[in-house]
Amino acid sequence: MKLGVLLFEGFELLDVFGPLEMLGQIEELSIELVSVKKGAVMSAQGPSAVAEQTLSSNACYDIILVPGGTGTRTAINSSEVIKWIAERGCNARYTASVCTGSALLAKAGLLKGKKATTNKLAFSWVCSQAKDTQWIARARWVQDANVFSSAGVSAGIDMSLALIEEIWGDQRARQVADWAEYQWNSNPDHDVFAAKHGL
Amino acid sequence: MKLGVLLFEGFELLDVFGPLEMLGQIEELSIELVSVKKGAVMSAQGPSAVAEQTLSSNACYDIILVPGGTGTRTAINSSEVIKWIAERGCNARYTASVCTGSALLAKAGLLKGKKATTNKLAFSWVCSQAKDTQWIARARWVQDANVFSSAGVSAGIDMSLALIEEIWGDQRARQVADWAEYQWNSNPDHDVFAAKHGL
Repeated sequence: MKLGVLLFEGFELLDVFGPLEMLGQIEELSIELVSVKKGAVMSAQGPSAVAEQTLSSNACYDIILVPGGTGTRTAINSSEVIKWIAERGCNARYTASVCTGSALLAKAGLLKGKKATTNKLAFSWVCSQAKDTQWIARARWVQDANVFSSAGVSAGIDMSLALIEEIWGDQRARQVADWAEYQWNSNPDHDVFAAKHGL
Repeated sequence: MKLGVLLFEGFELLDVFGPLEMLGQIEELSIELVSVKKGAVMSAQGPSAVAEQTLSSNACYDIILVPGGTGTRTAINSSEVIKWIAERGCNARYTASVCTGSALLAKAGLLKGKKATTNKLAFSWVCSQAKDTQWIARARWVQDANVFSSAGVSAGIDMSLALIEEIWGDQRARQVADWAEYQWNSNPDHDVFAAKHGL
């Protein structure tokens, strides 16, 4: 199986590398970082990661992962980025977003008639991207059919373990979390941040 | 203030990017990724990050961060890497390691007579690097004077928030964690993984 991870300038570090720490432990899964062009892509925090593949390649992915970050405000206006998400999302077995990445899924039409969640602090902006989506404020992550969306930043780690559980089973997800010494919040409804952020 | 982050082939993704998600929110802190040579450095999971500075530069750092990962087994035999840690660690205000990164601190002589911790699954290997260190098996992280060491992988996130607390105060650390929707385990002695991994 192959995972395609979207990178754009200003992506949030943990949105990408939290899930990749967990998914990277699955030997059956190969990971490819994808962006407008190959090479260094700078994160919102400054450090850069390396895109190995371009959006215009013919690569097929079983899973796509779309991060958030301040860069989503620009990426949402990129027809190339939105087209990639729409096309690859339709063909993938699973689509996953972290944080404000769900705004990009919405713009690409992947959340029509679906339930989804996003970052608390950007909630109203993300919701405005798709009126035909049932946005859930109090959730660590939301799964609707084959689309997973997580709340802000760190919630992506919990969601990625749920994705591992969905595909490879509960025992595998717990092994991965234990190996990484990560205390998995495995209940998607357990979310202390909605109230903290006034939602 | 300036943070120097060591990268080597086979570094663990979350060891680096968990702490950088949190420390990256501190505007007063600039981040520099450092390696043997500039450019792409491949992680243990496959994706690469970009080193902006070389080990041989004259850059000074207020904090150095040393990750773990399978690559520590090679990095520990690199005189260039160990020299960098020894020199920069002596001159930095704070030194921090995540996971098996503490084996590299030990080899560099920074843990002599100090308390420290490390990854549970590599505990005996790391301990063998410094007999004159008091290795603590049951800890999320350990602070001894200006040296912080965390347990495996995810524990680095909790430790980085403790480092923020130490330098910028408790309120700042909690703001950073809340912003990233991260439930901070702020008690260094709360560690459920020692027992799980038979320590």
